[in-house]
Formats: sequence, structure tokens, C-alpha cells
Amino acid sequence: MAITNSMENFEMIVNDDFIKKADALIPELIKTEITPEQIVTIEPDGDNYKAVFKSDIEELKNIEMGRDDKVILDFGNHNVGYVKFNITSAGSPPDAPAYIRIKFGEIPVEIVENSGEYSGDIGKGWIQEEFLHIDILPTVIEMPRRYAFRYMEIKVIDTSSKYRVVLEKVSCTSVTSADMSKVTALPVLDEDLAEMDRVALRTMQGCMQKGFEDGPKRDRRLWIGDLRLQAQTNYVTFHNNDLVKHDLYLYAGLTMNEGRVGACLFTEPKYQVDDTALFDYSLFFVSILYDYYMETKDEETRKDLTATAYRQIELAVRELDDEGIVKDKETWWCFIDWADGLNKQAGAQGILVYALRHGIKLAEFDQNEEKAKEYTGYLEKAIAGAMKLWDAEKGFFVSGSEKQISWASQVWMVLADVFGDKAKNAQLLEHTIVIDPKIRMVTPYMYHHFIEALVQNNRKEVALSFMRAYWGEMVKDGADTFWELYDPADKNVAPYGSKMVNSYCHAWSCSPSYIIRKYLI
Amino acid sequence: MAITNSMENFEMIVNDDFIKKADALIPELIKTEITPEQIVTIEPDGDNYKAVFKSDIEELKNIEMGRDDKVILDFGNHNVGYVKFNITSAGSPPDAPAYIRIKFGEIPVEIVENSGEYSGDIGKGWIQEEFLHIDILPTVIEMPRRYAFRYMEIKVIDTSSKYRVVLEKVSCTSVTSADMSKVTALPVLDEDLAEMDRVALRTMQGCMQKGFEDGPKRDRRLWIGDLRLQAQTNYVTFHNNDLVKHDLYLYAGLTMNEGRVGACLFTEPKYQVDDTALFDYSLFFVSILYDYYMETKDEETRKDLTATAYRQIELAVRELDDEGIVKDKETWWCFIDWADGLNKQAGAQGILVYALRHGIKLAEFDQNEEKAKEYTGYLEKAIAGAMKLWDAEKGFFVSGSEKQISWASQVWMVLADVFGDKAKNAQLLEHTIVIDPKIRMVTPYMYHHFIEALVQNNRKEVALSFMRAYWGEMVKDGADTFWELYDPADKNVAPYGSKMVNSYCHAWSCSPSYIIRKYLI
Repeated sequence: MAITNSMENFEMIVNDDFIKKADALIPELIKTEITPEQIVTIEPDGDNYKAVFKSDIEELKNIEMGRDDKVILDFGNHNVGYVKFNITSAGSPPDAPAYIRIKFGEIPVEIVENSGEYSGDIGKGWIQEEFLHIDILPTVIEMPRRYAFRYMEIKVIDTSSKYRVVLEKVSCTSVTSADMSKVTALPVLDEDLAEMDRVALRTMQGCMQKGFEDGPKRDRRLWIGDLRLQAQTNYVTFHNNDLVKHDLYLYAGLTMNEGRVGACLFTEPKYQVDDTALFDYSLFFVSILYDYYMETKDEETRKDLTATAYRQIELAVRELDDEGIVKDKETWWCFIDWADGLNKQAGAQGILVYALRHGIKLAEFDQNEEKAKEYTGYLEKAIAGAMKLWDAEKGFFVSGSEKQISWASQVWMVLADVFGDKAKNAQLLEHTIVIDPKIRMVTPYMYHHFIEALVQNNRKEVALSFMRAYWGEMVKDGADTFWELYDPADKNVAPYGSKMVNSYCHAWSCSPSYIIRKYLI
Repeated sequence: MAITNSMENFEMIVNDDFIKKADALIPELIKTEITPEQIVTIEPDGDNYKAVFKSDIEELKNIEMGRDDKVILDFGNHNVGYVKFNITSAGSPPDAPAYIRIKFGEIPVEIVENSGEYSGDIGKGWIQEEFLHIDILPTVIEMPRRYAFRYMEIKVIDTSSKYRVVLEKVSCTSVTSADMSKVTALPVLDEDLAEMDRVALRTMQGCMQKGFEDGPKRDRRLWIGDLRLQAQTNYVTFHNNDLVKHDLYLYAGLTMNEGRVGACLFTEPKYQVDDTALFDYSLFFVSILYDYYMETKDEETRKDLTATAYRQIELAVRELDDEGIVKDKETWWCFIDWADGLNKQAGAQGILVYALRHGIKLAEFDQNEEKAKEYTGYLEKAIAGAMKLWDAEKGFFVSGSEKQISWASQVWMVLADVFGDKAKNAQLLEHTIVIDPKIRMVTPYMYHHFIEALVQNNRKEVALSFMRAYWGEMVKDGADTFWELYDPADKNVAPYGSKMVNSYCHAWSCSPSYIIRKYLI
């Protein structure tokens, strides 16, 4: 997720007790030594690229490389970790520094694209490419930065006319806080679903580090929108509930102006809430705490953090107008999805209703009848407001002054269950599918909500067919982990200006394991 | 110096005692903290470039840099050392790695040239350019490699749209084993000579490290041709005689096949003599040991190393033909100078005579009458051979089967004093100047020998005018330290394919301090 707005007069409110509790929950990372499996070339494959076997990895030690020579290593699967290798010389004693370029790619295209041509909106610094001078050979290079990759290209920019370099013992110490042994084996299942589950688990693994990151290649931060999906998936897979707890305490311990939960957090060099506030993302704190408590019955955490959840509701309901409708804004105030031109009002309305239901539950757990009653009042008001966005003639919820009809608006109204009627919900989803409003869904994050809306309203088969058409197609396109962005109708979509800055292991895309394990088995 | 040949069946003979003695002499480097003096721009200046004041260095902390912004710092003089700086952020919390490029230049043109366009013969790895990802801000960057530079450009390739970077506390820990306090102040002297001396001392400082390096930017190795000039200059300047001793023990401790002293040594990761053998360079071991003993009267070192000197003479005289002339070769067997097309035979003959004179002295110090007699026989034979290269009609020594007439051949025959007559020597030099043979001198190294030949044969004024026209012109062209290569008639000479790989602080160019302090004051 990439965001460009900043909050004016931003300030951070720190709760030291919460930070201490979060600190105590930082997991030890599980480290695994991974070695490359084969030497490959990257070749065109229609509009895309694919890795093709070139030689056995045992050949590497026999390859002497001079100016402009290169070798591409395939580690066999997506990894997140720290790379090291030995580099020695062949020929005369090295009389000039070896100068090499190393590229890492989550997918093959990243290896062949030219970083020099990138001029997109997102920081070039995310491109996984390093230039390295090696003054003394032989030596062991331990690269200090963490990379997310399957493919590693080493290109020798130059040695000298008197010597070449040879690479040996290339390895990656992969890191994760996801323990695969905690995951229950699936019952016998269609192979494509089992594969989607495997890829989703690998995605979770890559993103589960000292906190739930959104993507191990790009952003590498704790975004609360991603966290909600990761936590839900975690409950049916890795069961690392302390990691959810860690993130919840951090979000509550580092709020922004008025106690608002931020959209994302930085953990280094110090804890810092970003100056980005999003209506939906702040509200998700309520839902994540509710989900966490339902999963763990952890009373202490619930008691500690309920006040933070209340605060999010109070800040959100301030945005309701007299009719109970969330006020629309011109700014980038609410996320929902990356779809171009998407009006957020109706989606925000749905999310408010969705979160209010969890807020009421938290008030009940808290035995705070007054709050429960107050929130019930808000819920009624918000549902009434939602219904004012219903265009009975068109059979859709509309959003904003232009009365925009989008997939996202319908999905969130269904998840919020504003109809209180599964049949009507299902009918709305089917109507959406048939009419196909032109403001479509563009992220796996939004697709996830669509799939869950279908499943929860007795449309498992439809959900499954969409899951196959989306995540299943990604697998067919070679995904080792699920991608941040995917459009089966436009497979070269690169909204940030280049595929090099797309994240190909992205938390919000981990949905299949959640859907399969929660609803389908 | 850049060399491309390799010796076949190369082997290294190690004398552990000598290595131990060399190890014990490794100097502690003198470290000095240097800070930049001003912010500059680099602007065209005729065919070259110059640095122009842009703003006070105090402004640096106020400069916020984003994509494509850059700043050029001028450290006020040439330095060799390790750079560190603080980098902080301005704006929102950094949500992407900062990606920066750092260039170091000994002279301004290195900052503006595009390294991507370099395709010369010398390793690109010498270009002082680094690409750095900074994941966490603020931080202190301590660059691990040593650079030789006056100018430092920091270009921000990218941050993100949410933040900029700010640089602070840029500094360089300069390193040298040359102690400026050991240098005697010059008497009142023409200012241009005093300036040449200052620049030469700075050059020596840059090249005096744990051994005498040829250039602190490029090669950074112990070349024996450079060592001879550095040692001679050192005796009249820094008086760091242990550093000469260190290098002598290393050369004697690490010989190649048949005990031949190599043309250069590597000291890291382990001691290693290069597989490059040069007729003149091996012989210079004799002269350097002679010079060292004359300066220090260090009996132990003389006794230890005389056998190595003898060996070089014995290997060299094997190359004499029946007429006492050094056999010419097609290969790159002797250095002399970089002049295109230069035939090395006559120069080699001169150097053999030159070194034999020192060899006889060493035999005498050694009270080895037999050797002294033997070498005197070689000397007579070699002088007779030299005279066979004399073309009385042309008034020049000729070289090789094509009877080539070059400046270098005349200069070395004069330095070798084959005439045994200063008047004839001077006449030959003057004849050379007047006739100006087309195979000219191209390196300060060869110019040094020309100047010394003039001075030693009562032509101080001519020497001075050539020194002014050469090193003096380099100073006028902005040299803070003397350059590896310089041609007053073609100031953009870049024989290695680009100025970026030229060394602008080069040991063999340190001559002015030697000439001025030994002969002119």
C-alpha cells in the first residue's frame, strides 16, 4: 500500500504500558538456511517472462565471470531473508576491485526490467538492486539488507583483464515468525484449492515477521487493513495469536491526534505511527480486537484495549450527517480499494455499520450497558443512513454526490448486513455480478471481501468460482506467493509505474487459506 | 599503472623471516578528521571543468533533498580516507528506503562524467561511485571503503513523496603514514616552486599508507618503479625510512620464479607478489636498496637483502647478447614509460648500467670482491653494448631492430652515464630537446628521469624550465596533488578510456619535492 497524504498538525500519543506489552511480545524469528536450486535464464513468455532451466546449481562453482557476465539463481520458492555468498577469483591476483550488481526478484520480470527506466510514483529505493565493490578477494559477502525473492541475479559489471570472479555457497537465511508445523493439514481437497492454500500460507509466512507486515518486499510495515485479514487467516492457520496481540498493543500504544488509531505503524528506528488517518482503517481496530477476543478470550487484552476501540467509534460517528450518512470528502480519507475513481462514501458507511456491530459486542463484554445502548443507537442511525443510499430502482447502493455505483459499495453493505437478510444480500451480490458496474474491484484485498460476502450469504459455489478465477489464475500465472495487485483481465497492471515496485507477496492477498479453512472444509 | 600480462608457470617464493620483519614495520596510520569547506557546483571551463562556490557549508543542514536532488561538497584539498555522515529525514516518517548515489572525485570532472558510459580497459570498479539504500532514518553512514578525493557528490536517487533527506556532519577521517611535521620548511623560494613542493608533499601523503602505494585512488598497490621515486623523495621530506625498509623486506620476501623481484605486490587479503615481471622494475630493487643504505647506513637490512639484489643482477645479465646488448622482446617485458610505440631496448640497457653501478657498490659494502669484480665485468660489457646503440651520425642512442630514437632512450643512457662525461651527457639532452624525437615522454615518471638527468649534468635552469612547464602547468590546471598522467599539449589525455579511472594523486609524480629539496636549495 502506498499513500501520499499527510495529516496537518499531526501528533503522536504514546501509551508506555501498551508499548511495553507489545515489546514483550516481539517474536523470535524462525531462521532457515535456503540454497538456490538451479541456474536459470529469464525468457519472454507471451506478455510476461518465465524462468527456464539453464544448468545444475553444482555448475556455479565452475563459472568464471568477467565484465558483463551474469548468472541467475532460482531458489525454488519465494523467500524472505538475508543472503550471503563466497566470492573468489580465478586468474591472476585481483588488481582491481570486483564490481557487481545484484538483483532480487519475487517474480522473473523483476530480473529483466531496467531499474534505470523506472520513474513511477513509488520510491525507487524499493527496487531490490544493489551495486557492490569488492576490494579484497576471496571474501564472504553477507548482505545486510533483507530481501524478498525467489530469483537472484549476479551480474559482474567488471573485474579486470587479469582475473575473473567465481561465486560459491550462495545461501539465504530465511526469516519468519510463522511456524509451518502449527498449520493443520488440509483434508483431501481439489488440488487447485490445496495449491491456493499452500501459496497463501507461503504468503503469510513471508509477511509474518516481528509484526504482521503488509509485504516483505515493499512497505514492510504494519498496515491495519492488512492486519485484519492476516489475523483472521492466522486464527485458522499459524495460530500465532501473540503476534496479533503485539500489533494491537502497538496500534493502541501509538495513536495520533485525539486518540485516533493510525493507518500504519513504523517500528524502526523507533515506534512511530504514520501521519496517515483513514476512516475505515481506524474502525478496523474495533473489529480486530473483537476477532482477537473471540478467538482467544484474552480478558486482559480486551480490558486494556476496549477504550481505544470505543474511541475509534466515537471519532467515526462524528462523521455522520443528520441523516446518519457518513459525510463524503474530497481528500483521500478512506481506503476501501485502489479502484480508479471509486467513491468511498457507501463503502465507509458499510464499514461503520460492520464495526459498530463489533463495538456493541465489546461494550457488552465490557458490561458497559450505557455504551452498548449508545452504540446500538448509532448502529440504527447508520443502518438507516445506509438505506438512504439504496437506490431501489437500480437495485444498488449509491455513493457520493454523483450517486456512483461500484462493486465495493455493494460488498461492504452486504458484509455490514444492512438488510439483515441473507437472501437480499445474496441477491444484491448476484445483481452486481450480472450488471457488472464499471467501478470494479482491483485488489485481492477487495476481492477477499467480495468472496467472504458471497460465502456468508450462501453463495459458496459462486465464491469458489470467483476464487478460482482470481487467486487460481494467479497460481496459473506462476505465483509462488499471492500478489498485491492482480487483474485477470489485464495481467500487466502496474499502477505504481513498474512491476519492479509491485509487491508479489502481500498480506492482504492471503485470503484463500482463510476462506478455505474457515468456510469450505 | 595498469598491466595486462601474466607470467606463465608463475610461482611465489616466500621468505618468512623477511615477511616477519616487514610485518613489524607496518606503520600506525595518522588519522585526521577533515570536514568539507564549501558547497560547490561543477561547471564547464574550456575543455575541462571547475568547481564554483555555491553556498556556505553551514547551509547543508537546511537542504532537504528528494528525487534527483544533489549536492557537491568541496573538502578544500585532496584527502585519502574514510567518509561518514549523518542522514536524517524531513517531512513524514520515511515510508520507503532512501536511495542515494555518492561519487567521489579527485578533480571536478570525475563528478560530472557518467560512469555508465565508461568502457575502457581498466576495471570499472575503480570508479569511486557507490549506490546506497538506507532503510532506517535517521542514521549514521560510515562508508567502509577508502576514497581518494576532494569533491563528494551526494545525489538522492529517491526518497518517497512523503519525505526528504537531510545530510549533516559529513566528515572524512584522512589516513597517511606521512608525518608533515617531519618535513623541513623550505627557504624562501619562488612561489611557484614552493607551490609545486606543497602539491608534491600532498601527493606523497596520499600515497604513503601502510606501504608506499602508487596511487590511493587506483591500483593502491606497491609498485617498485613508484617506490624508487617515493623513497628518494621521502629521504628529503618525510624521513619515514622504516616504510622504505618495510617495502624492501616485502619485495625480497615475496619473489617470483628464480627469485625474481616482482613488479608489484598485493598485501591483502594476504601477501602476494603479482605475476608481472619487468626487466627494469626488478633491477630497481638494487638501486632502492643502495639508496636506502646510503641514506640510513642500516647494516642489518643491507646484509639481509643484498643477496636478493645480486639475484636481480644475475637474472638481468642473462638477457645480454654476445655484444653486451640487452635482447629486445616482442612482449611487454620492460616498463620505461607509457609512450605509444616506445621500444624498450635502449632504455633497458641504460637501466642495467645504472643498476650495475649500484650492484658493484653493494658488493663492495658486502666486502665481496669476487662479486664486485664480476659485476664490474658486466658493467664494462653493458657500457660497451650501450655504445653499440650509439648512432654517431644522428647523435642519438637507437633502440630495437628499427633503430628507434626516443626521448626515454637518451635519458636513461644519460642517467646511466655511459659516456662518463657530463658535457657529453648535457649535449645529448640538449640535442634531444632541439630535435624533439617523436617518441616523447608521456608520464611524470619519465619526466622525472629527464629532469634529474638535466640537473645531474649541470643543466639546472633547463630542468627548472621543464619542471615549470610540466608540474607547474599541472598546478595551474588545478592539481591539488600531482597526476598520474599529464600532457601539457593534450590536457584531456585519458589513455585508459576515461578520466574517471585516471589517478590524480600518483606516487611517481612526486618528483618536484625531490628535485627542489635535493638539488635546488
